Amino acid sequence: MNTHAVKAFGAAASDAELNQLTIHRRTLHPSDVEIDILYCGVCHSDLHTVRNDWGGTIYPTVPGHEIVGKVTNIGSAVTAFNVGDTVGVGCMVDSCRTCDSCQQDLEQFCLNGFTGTYNGQEKYLGTPTYGGYSERIVVDEHFVLRVPTNLNAAAVAPLLCAGITTWSPLRHWKVREGSRVAVIGLGGLGHMAIKLAKGLGASVTLFSRSEGKMEDARKLGADEIIISTDSAQMKSVKGRFDLIIDTVPYIHDINPFVGALKINGTLVLVGYLGKLDPMLNSVPMVMGRKSVAGSVIGGIAETQEMLDFCGEKNIVSDIELIRMQDINTAYDRMLKSDVKYRFVIDMASLK
Amino acid sequence: MNTHAVKAFGAAASDAELNQLTIHRRTLHPSDVEIDILYCGVCHSDLHTVRNDWGGTIYPTVPGHEIVGKVTNIGSAVTAFNVGDTVGVGCMVDSCRTCDSCQQDLEQFCLNGFTGTYNGQEKYLGTPTYGGYSERIVVDEHFVLRVPTNLNAAAVAPLLCAGITTWSPLRHWKVREGSRVAVIGLGGLGHMAIKLAKGLGASVTLFSRSEGKMEDARKLGADEIIISTDSAQMKSVKGRFDLIIDTVPYIHDINPFVGALKINGTLVLVGYLGKLDPMLNSVPMVMGRKSVAGSVIGGIAETQEMLDFCGEKNIVSDIELIRMQDINTAYDRMLKSDVKYRFVIDMASLK
Repeated sequence: MNTHAVKAFGAAASDAELNQLTIHRRTLHPSDVEIDILYCGVCHSDLHTVRNDWGGTIYPTVPGHEIVGKVTNIGSAVTAFNVGDTVGVGCMVDSCRTCDSCQQDLEQFCLNGFTGTYNGQEKYLGTPTYGGYSERIVVDEHFVLRVPTNLNAAAVAPLLCAGITTWSPLRHWKVREGSRVAVIGLGGLGHMAIKLAKGLGASVTLFSRSEGKMEDARKLGADEIIISTDSAQMKSVKGRFDLIIDTVPYIHDINPFVGALKINGTLVLVGYLGKLDPMLNSVPMVMGRKSVAGSVIGGIAETQEMLDFCGEKNIVSDIELIRMQDINTAYDRMLKSDVKYRFVIDMASLK
Repeated sequence: MNTHAVKAFGAAASDAELNQLTIHRRTLHPSDVEIDILYCGVCHSDLHTVRNDWGGTIYPTVPGHEIVGKVTNIGSAVTAFNVGDTVGVGCMVDSCRTCDSCQQDLEQFCLNGFTGTYNGQEKYLGTPTYGGYSERIVVDEHFVLRVPTNLNAAAVAPLLCAGITTWSPLRHWKVREGSRVAVIGLGGLGHMAIKLAKGLGASVTLFSRSEGKMEDARKLGADEIIISTDSAQMKSVKGRFDLIIDTVPYIHDINPFVGALKINGTLVLVGYLGKLDPMLNSVPMVMGRKSVAGSVIGGIAETQEMLDFCGEKNIVSDIELIRMQDINTAYDRMLKSDVKYRFVIDMASLK
């Protein structure tokens, strides 16, 4: 099969820094879109994959799944895109398209496993997939999104992961005008959750451990900040929320937050993968028909819906633009939560 | 305030057997219905209250919240019932009627706390409420249910608690023709969950630890029995169910059952109050948008809906009728799960 060489940035091993390398992209199939990458957001998953925190990383690995770029070429069967369009690619570049989940536009739950934008398996080449820390990418048009032209393209990039990850639960649990939503944690996901919930007309509360985030949270649109380590403040929001989006990526006690749910309310985990320690207490769940759930990214149709909504409401991510060559420093800073609220790589720096 | 003496059966202390005693019922207020109790089901909660397992029992205590009887008198403002009607009373005899939950017909989640049929606080007398192990009871008409006359009245009694406890989650999570429902545990709650889910047109699987229940479960309507300790059988139902109703009342590992949920599925706890030990793993919840929830009884309107449905579909509980004087033996047998599937007291034995 024909391929073409592309400049990229990746890691050769779990303990190696990211450096420039060359990867190969497939030549266009009839339904493929070739995209010149302008911007790529930096997600915690990039770092986890590079460092093999979840196991299974194939090296060299090229991360990046918050991609915005321009269409430079289209396959003969492509109908939805033209050369010159501003487009996005998120966490998935393919799925089986035939299973129950795919048939319901829930490609994120593809029963045969979706193809990750990186560290997946390239459909035609059999190589690993390589992500957005690169000059160009070739993606089937079904997994390409239209980016509203009124938005700052760099600040759109994080919508493709942090945006859809928080949008999907807001929609699935039917948040609307007047809903009471709380967000736990103010990072990449948390700041998007606040903006999107606010955009949908909800009243929004941020749960944070530190007083320091109060002003920033208000600027992002939060109506209220509750310091979760202050028991009097926690008591004041007992039985209050329809939906709580928990963006905290590390182990933490969710029981106090279940107490803050209204009857029929749901706490949805979008950041933490692992055992619920301390143990979840079923009593308030039974006595208030409360749910604890999880959610991951969203389907392609839902991602497009979110982008269109952001275009309408002028919602983008708050970002810090960096050069590709600064990625290793950015990872160090990300580990210290020293970013408001998402790093985005200006891919012109790679050329 | 005027009261009248009524024969009852109750316990004087947590370590005492139940014996005959005299309690007082209030005389009728305008909205009250006086009921001559014909049958009263025996629920695990009765035993827990008698033995003070949950703390807070006020002695002497008279249990019983699965009550079926005949109306013998009505207050001047009662509109829904007439003398001679066959009626039921479940776990609640009052609530605040004004809070958000009550306004939504969710009296079971009354934000001011519903009044339990026993061990609650009698609205007018200030005494504890006394349950259905007695000759007569006086209840506000809002908390009295119509019992379909085509059903065996004795076998209706357990519908007032075991029935509504399993009906409410079936309805809340929208089980219908073609839904895939599983039930964990085959006791009072489990056998009702099977019958009601089947009545709604679902395909129904029973999870049980013992092969011995297979034939009985099939007779009750289960399409399939999965032995939950057999890993090959558990594997065969991975990703299968829309709703799992977990009726197990003691600590147990729910993680294997979460694995049996379909994308978007819910496991609802109706039997167990306490910490989820071993710890719940969030990974399958996040990766499949699965929920773990709880549920308790149901509202009054929903209880009436369930009774009407049972009338239509000819659904009642499988019972073993006992005399009031045999209650202590029945408790011992209940602790050993030696009942198919609910004891019901023939209250004629008390007269």
